Formats: sequence, structure tokens, C-alpha cells
Amino acid sequence: MDFSRMCPKYESSIDIIGKKWTGLIIRVLLDGPKRFKDIKEQIPNMSDKMLTDRIKELEGLDIIVRNVYPETPVRIEYELTPKGKDLRVVIEAIQAWGERWMPAP
Amino acid sequence: MDFSRMCPKYESSIDIIGKKWTGLIIRVLLDGPKRFKDIKEQIPNMSDKMLTDRIKELEGLDIIVRNVYPETPVRIEYELTPKGKDLRVVIEAIQAWGERWMPAP
Repeated sequence: MDFSRMCPKYESSIDIIGKKWTGLIIRVLLDGPKRFKDIKEQIPNMSDKMLTDRIKELEGLDIIVRNVYPETPVRIEYELTPKGKDLRVVIEAIQAWGERWMPAP
Repeated sequence: MDFSRMCPKYESSIDIIGKKWTGLIIRVLLDGPKRFKDIKEQIPNMSDKMLTDRIKELEGLDIIVRNVYPETPVRIEYELTPKGKDLRVVIEAIQAWGERWMPAP
């Protein structure tokens, strides 16, 4: 891999993945489709508005899809698209690095 | 890998790697030790002050080390530590994802 010159595709990717909360939301959804409140439960410090905004961004980027199930009451779940699921290797690499180098909290 | 619960080591890792400019600086240094101006050259939109701040942070986190060579004029280079070099797999995973999914600029 050539690191001697910056690459615009790398720049845009890290802008997406590194954005505050985004890397946490994607990690939660790697566990499978989740409702809004289930995502919130894993990331309690994030406000509802922030999660709403991030979900919209990630839908716009085709990383998350919103599934509406016409039940009573209606059930809405968020799920990673193939593009989103393909981030698994990135998230796992970050997790593995953290386990090797981050001090215990 | 268990994604059903958030992990504090993952949270701290993505906070570091995802911080604006940091992921770009680490990528540049994966190519080998570099002087301040060589890093800047690869990331022209970043100000000198920002690069100085980020380098200090990354030194504090033991991700970058500053080497001073007592020549005339003195030569100063920044290099990834073993902890920093261990981020190669993360950076490569982000790059690979970007190449698969980001549109050409």
C-alpha cells in the first residue's frame, strides 16, 4: 500500500468513520438490526437529537438502512447496508488495537 | 468479537484515531520518519499550529516519537512508535474500505 501520497478516498473514509459518535453507532449495529432506543442504550452519553442526526447522515451515505415493519405499534429498526457491514474489518481492527494498547479504564 | 456491549477501550481508540487530522498524520508517518514540513506537504489544508498540537498529543499518547539529530542545522524527525506502527492494520482497513466504496473524487 502506498503511503507516500495522501489519498482522497482515505480522507473521505476517515472523515465518516472518525466523526463523533459514528464509530460507536456502527459498532452497535454490527451486532444486528436495532431500534433507536436499543442504540441509545449502548451509547447513553449521546443525545436523542445527535443520534437522529447521525442516523440521517449514515442513511444518506448508504451505510445504514431504516426498516419499517407495519405492526401495531409500528416497529422501526436500523440496519447496516452491505457498505456498512463491510466496515466490520475496520471496527475489529480498532477494537483489537485498543485491547492491545489502551489502559484498563 | 462481542458487539452486544460497548467497550471503553474501543471508545478511547476511536476518539484518538478519528480526531480531525490525526488519521491523516498517522497515515503519512506509516511511510517512514518525516520532518515537520514533509508531513505538512502531504496535508496542505492543515495549519502549522494544528500540526504542532496534534504532534504533541500523539507524543503524549506514545504514538509518535520526536527524534533530534545534532547536525548543523539540527534535524528533527517524527516517527511512529511500536504503538503507532501497530495502527497500520487500522489505516489499511480504512484505505481498503475507501477504495471499495468511496466515489472517485
